[in-house]
Amino acid sequence: MSDIDQKALADKAQLKIEKRKRFEQVFPLLVDELTSYLESEQMPAEAIDWFKRNLDYNTPGGKLNRGLSVVDTVEIILCTDNATGNLTRQLTDTEYLKAAILGWCIELLQAYFLVADDMMDQSITRRGQPCWYRVDGVGNIAINDAFMLEAAIYFLLKKHFRSEPYYGMLLELFHDVTFQTELGQLIDLITAPEDSVDLSKFSLKKHHLIVVYKTAFYSFYLPVALAMRMAGIQDEALYKHALDILIPMGEYFQVQDDVLDCYGKPEDIGKIGTDILDNKCSWNINIALAHATPEQRAVLDANYGRKDSACEAKVKEVFAAPNIDVAGRFAAYEKESYEKLNALIDALPEGAGATAEHGGLRRDVFRLFLGKVYKRAK
Amino acid sequence: MSDIDQKALADKAQLKIEKRKRFEQVFPLLVDELTSYLESEQMPAEAIDWFKRNLDYNTPGGKLNRGLSVVDTVEIILCTDNATGNLTRQLTDTEYLKAAILGWCIELLQAYFLVADDMMDQSITRRGQPCWYRVDGVGNIAINDAFMLEAAIYFLLKKHFRSEPYYGMLLELFHDVTFQTELGQLIDLITAPEDSVDLSKFSLKKHHLIVVYKTAFYSFYLPVALAMRMAGIQDEALYKHALDILIPMGEYFQVQDDVLDCYGKPEDIGKIGTDILDNKCSWNINIALAHATPEQRAVLDANYGRKDSACEAKVKEVFAAPNIDVAGRFAAYEKESYEKLNALIDALPEGAGATAEHGGLRRDVFRLFLGKVYKRAK
Repeated sequence: MSDIDQKALADKAQLKIEKRKRFEQVFPLLVDELTSYLESEQMPAEAIDWFKRNLDYNTPGGKLNRGLSVVDTVEIILCTDNATGNLTRQLTDTEYLKAAILGWCIELLQAYFLVADDMMDQSITRRGQPCWYRVDGVGNIAINDAFMLEAAIYFLLKKHFRSEPYYGMLLELFHDVTFQTELGQLIDLITAPEDSVDLSKFSLKKHHLIVVYKTAFYSFYLPVALAMRMAGIQDEALYKHALDILIPMGEYFQVQDDVLDCYGKPEDIGKIGTDILDNKCSWNINIALAHATPEQRAVLDANYGRKDSACEAKVKEVFAAPNIDVAGRFAAYEKESYEKLNALIDALPEGAGATAEHGGLRRDVFRLFLGKVYKRAK
Repeated sequence: MSDIDQKALADKAQLKIEKRKRFEQVFPLLVDELTSYLESEQMPAEAIDWFKRNLDYNTPGGKLNRGLSVVDTVEIILCTDNATGNLTRQLTDTEYLKAAILGWCIELLQAYFLVADDMMDQSITRRGQPCWYRVDGVGNIAINDAFMLEAAIYFLLKKHFRSEPYYGMLLELFHDVTFQTELGQLIDLITAPEDSVDLSKFSLKKHHLIVVYKTAFYSFYLPVALAMRMAGIQDEALYKHALDILIPMGEYFQVQDDVLDCYGKPEDIGKIGTDILDNKCSWNINIALAHATPEQRAVLDANYGRKDSACEAKVKEVFAAPNIDVAGRFAAYEKESYEKLNALIDALPEGAGATAEHGGLRRDVFRLFLGKVYKRAK
């Protein structure tokens, strides 16, 4: 790599760090607004401290991809010159703050889900620290804490967006996507309970439903749709178009996640995958089930979802068998997905819905997402 | 009692049964709407069955006071002739259905709280059946089920009220009151954890905050405020007036509840009270703490919140001591509350905010509530 290339890469990494930092600096302001509300309602100091600790422990600390995507998307829509396709200005401080608040609302939604998911999965750690319900003195109070993380979303939306014409659409997006995510979680929980293995419940169809509902709506569609609302895009057909790109992209992302759980390097993915041990309804097992011989199926039935590394090894052997070849099939799936997604993006009329106020919906919104997820190793 | 009085009483009881029945008949329609949505999203049959079972198990089956109050309040506001103060018509079927749906939305909110509260309190039974999380195969999935009960509210509001001018106000009411209830639950959980007794955390001030936030907003203010919105009342001062009556009324109701837990007859209240054993931050213990001598305080510290009926008896002895006299102080409190609440109700201008469409806010709305709770034995 040339010095110039290296310099460009370093600049890009630096820019990413600065973007993240600016976004992170917004969160304490929101915590202040929330705790000030509790103070104004004469809540006892212990309750205010508890809520603050809940917010701080569970909301920042992740990759913040969803939140940052709102800001990036608003920037592309509002600041692109429609004639040249170039970014011609920066977001004003007010625009930035509003976009960042919407971003943090998604992070709060995610925190709400994760606090609860960790309890339901009896997980041990999250983002390198004990799961909230396992923190000394928290326990089942974490259920109410999860509720309060969700309540914080609507408090912040009311405070900052109540007078906007698109306020109702923001509420509706959060309500709809929350319900969809909970539906995905329900299918996942009853299809793949950790303590009772029944592979006949699995299928690629179920896997598709789980990942679309549990992940794709809130992680891919929601950030873009919120940004489009804030930017003033009103054409409902464009929301449909965005959905049609982002849902398959979210599905592709989750398939990667499943494959990385099995084949990723622990130093890259930051954990040792346990999907096979935990009876997860992953893409891998569903691909294996779809192609297994009766003998291989018997091996899967006997060894999947057992808390035993010897069983796990036998499952991985089946995954690697030439007629199944999970890794090879993923490579083909990845190539195909990438081409399909690019075709969908190219079919979007550049600057669709543009007005005097904004450059409309742009392909870069989706290319940015795809660039972040394509061939990722972590 | 004369035959005529008895006849009138029997008629009144019959009317109450019929009102309840009509209200109950609306719920299956809402379950159908919710499950149809899941079907339209191609959800697997197991997930649809599960959600239906969750809705049916946790939503009806209580006293339905909150839900029925919405209907009663809408009826009083919409059907009273402002000149005579008499009910001059019945709700149309459309009006009835809308009011009943709002009523069921409060019952769903309550179901959402109760499913979660039972997990946090590790309760055994609710409404004469095992708590949902204790049903075979449910367990911690109940957390996601609670979430879905809440999501059902916003689905139904969107479906039935989206085109109404007051739709945004309904959403806001649910958001605000949900947050307030969760705050009350938080204070309760950290003030009175079942496994660690520390009476120095208790106070009448804390008790006031807990009951107002955890109970009064959603049980007393919410039904009336929703009904007022639906009836078309827009004067914000009237919402404030309603709040100023209903919050103290809700507090009075919860104090009764605390007293009945200790002094009510099990055959009346349908359970054997366990507040003393469970370290609850009840009105009783706070009254006792406020008046105890150092010796009595030592008895309370040593015996409150212990899972032991001998300890419970010692606490009850302190409650009955002449300088404390919880029952006597309650009688005085009840009288005083009743007079205060009546004065607040009388201060409401009859038919305030009346228009050509409705008879405005009427004292009967509040008298009906007060009549239901005053001197109740169950």
